Amino acid sequence: MSSFVAYLSCARCGRALDHRVPQGLCPCGGPLLGDYDLDAVASAVPKADLPARVPTMWRYRELLPVEDAGSVVSLGEGFTPLLPMPALGERIGLPDLWVKDEGLNPTGTFKARGAACGVSRARELGIRHVALPTAGNAGGAWACYGAAAGLDVHVAMPAAAPSANRAECELFGADVTLVDGLISEAGRVIDRQCREEGWFDVSTMKEPYRVEGKKTLGLEIAEQLGWMAPDAIIYPAGGGVGVIGIWLAMRQLRQMGWLENDAPRLIITQSAGCAPLIRAFEQGSEESEPWRDGQTIAHGLRVHKAFADFLVLRAVRETGGTALAVTDDDIRESIRSFGQAGIGACPEGAATLAAAEALRERGDLSSRDRVVLINTGSALKYPDALGAD
Amino acid sequence: MSSFVAYLSCARCGRALDHRVPQGLCPCGGPLLGDYDLDAVASAVPKADLPARVPTMWRYRELLPVEDAGSVVSLGEGFTPLLPMPALGERIGLPDLWVKDEGLNPTGTFKARGAACGVSRARELGIRHVALPTAGNAGGAWACYGAAAGLDVHVAMPAAAPSANRAECELFGADVTLVDGLISEAGRVIDRQCREEGWFDVSTMKEPYRVEGKKTLGLEIAEQLGWMAPDAIIYPAGGGVGVIGIWLAMRQLRQMGWLENDAPRLIITQSAGCAPLIRAFEQGSEESEPWRDGQTIAHGLRVHKAFADFLVLRAVRETGGTALAVTDDDIRESIRSFGQAGIGACPEGAATLAAAEALRERGDLSSRDRVVLINTGSALKYPDALGAD
Repeated sequence: MSSFVAYLSCARCGRALDHRVPQGLCPCGGPLLGDYDLDAVASAVPKADLPARVPTMWRYRELLPVEDAGSVVSLGEGFTPLLPMPALGERIGLPDLWVKDEGLNPTGTFKARGAACGVSRARELGIRHVALPTAGNAGGAWACYGAAAGLDVHVAMPAAAPSANRAECELFGADVTLVDGLISEAGRVIDRQCREEGWFDVSTMKEPYRVEGKKTLGLEIAEQLGWMAPDAIIYPAGGGVGVIGIWLAMRQLRQMGWLENDAPRLIITQSAGCAPLIRAFEQGSEESEPWRDGQTIAHGLRVHKAFADFLVLRAVRETGGTALAVTDDDIRESIRSFGQAGIGACPEGAATLAAAEALRERGDLSSRDRVVLINTGSALKYPDALGAD
Repeated sequence: MSSFVAYLSCARCGRALDHRVPQGLCPCGGPLLGDYDLDAVASAVPKADLPARVPTMWRYRELLPVEDAGSVVSLGEGFTPLLPMPALGERIGLPDLWVKDEGLNPTGTFKARGAACGVSRARELGIRHVALPTAGNAGGAWACYGAAAGLDVHVAMPAAAPSANRAECELFGADVTLVDGLISEAGRVIDRQCREEGWFDVSTMKEPYRVEGKKTLGLEIAEQLGWMAPDAIIYPAGGGVGVIGIWLAMRQLRQMGWLENDAPRLIITQSAGCAPLIRAFEQGSEESEPWRDGQTIAHGLRVHKAFADFLVLRAVRETGGTALAVTDDDIRESIRSFGQAGIGACPEGAATLAAAEALRERGDLSSRDRVVLINTGSALKYPDALGAD
């Protein structure tokens, strides 16, 4: 094991902080990101060695923050398939369409990446209790990795979250609090509990390591496409950690000289029933305004204001991307289209297909574009959405 | 692509049949198995090349029956994690305990292996309609791969199978018939439909290629343990294809000189509520008698008589293995134990942990044994079993 993390820096004020002790937010309130000695990584790691490495996200260990191999809690997360979808793509005018299928992770969603990295690093730093609010899938992932690592996991989730998510948290022995309201209300409960109990708050972007795990999504897409980034990646943004992670990954790879093109354009989608990031993008704002009474069948997108919204919007704008809302009916239709092509998509993941279709129609994507959709989780996590039809 | 399949041979009468045309059963009624030119594989494939190959079951393409790479339908199946479970193992007196976690397959179960291979080969041979009875998970897997391949898939399943399984088949566009009774009754429906409609019957062991896909389970375990087979593998047997596949894999690897030890002992478990194979093993019979009114929460084990029971029993006996029934209460308890260790096990997979514990207690396994449990699927496939507690 040989992490090349050098320090943490605040994404708001730029202040550098020590990564060798537990850190939450910057004193200014901004989220912290890992800084790596990328020149050293580039000279230490021959790119040609990668194919023979372990087929999990830990193949990129030098670009991850865990320092001791013994701290890693791995259940096989990451290095999920990137699948060409020529027939489905043809039908929507995007023949070079691909799907990154995150359903093949432990607990069935991409949340496993953030949890594996966050739990491993928390354990390494001597933390015993972690706590987070969740719309469902993050709670299941953290509960699972917490169980594997021997950490106590405390989650608060909306009572309206899918029952399978609650059952999953309980299966893995997490302490579950059900909350009336959205994930923001669950966040307030966790914030208070952490202050009262001394638990470590691992809410989205309120500790530095979840996003580091998500970064591997971008590293994998680049490697799986032969170190040539696609023209566009479409991501269903709830808290938006994944798209921030992909953005960081591409920047780091470019700085290391591993990625030569300037792509990808990072495109986000949300449900029209709860679309604060899309509204902010369209209004040219640097941050989003809270969305009132958000409603969507895609529970992971029911986030009324993402904590790191300014970073999500920066990632989209800096890469020449765009943002687009789709309806729940579009999402249902896209679940079916994915299914007919052999992909069991969650509602959030299906939103990316609906967005791709709309972006092609309005000319934001061309028939020559190589487009990667992120299916953030398995249809299996949503038996209700499956059975509802 | 370079399959080294040479012909098919009947596991009952030994007759050789041509693999280049569609084949179901041998004229004698026995199941067909692939025969490979193993000496040629051993000289064509340097074992040292394997680590850099694709991290799916297709890394063993020379030992699979698909002849043209263009026929392969892959959604990322196989090369699932083999996880060391030292803490869980210590608690039951088996410190060298491992879990092969098949939940990280498309559709969340090991059925993806058989479906990927069977569908790919069916497409290669020009077949347009495949049909099978299923307790649930095989139907979902075949429906998924059929959708990806553009084949029509017809499934018959017990009305009592988990509703998530039916929804999954429908998501992938399969033609679903619900049947009163067990999978045996569903089998009769499929048998009749295949004769009437000219569909290709891909029931368990009634065509030669599903078991070839399952064989990769054994190949992977051997490779992941550094080409040293474990002392024992515990498998939850419904139709028993997986354990037959593992047995064939180990024999082929040994014949190729890739595996030097004589292990593993192949151990099967079933639920006490439906245990025809266990009863046959205990009675010293070569075949099983149909089990009446089988009942268990592990739907995949509710098979009253496995078609290839004689091969399952031969695999167990030839390797010095054994067979043991566990109760549904044991299964529920083992789901919890797995969960507390970070493994989301299906009831069938959990049965292997209960069996390991019992075998250790009765002295059939020793504390020095390296034991691999096959968790055949994800807990996510069983929201009812999760929520029921």
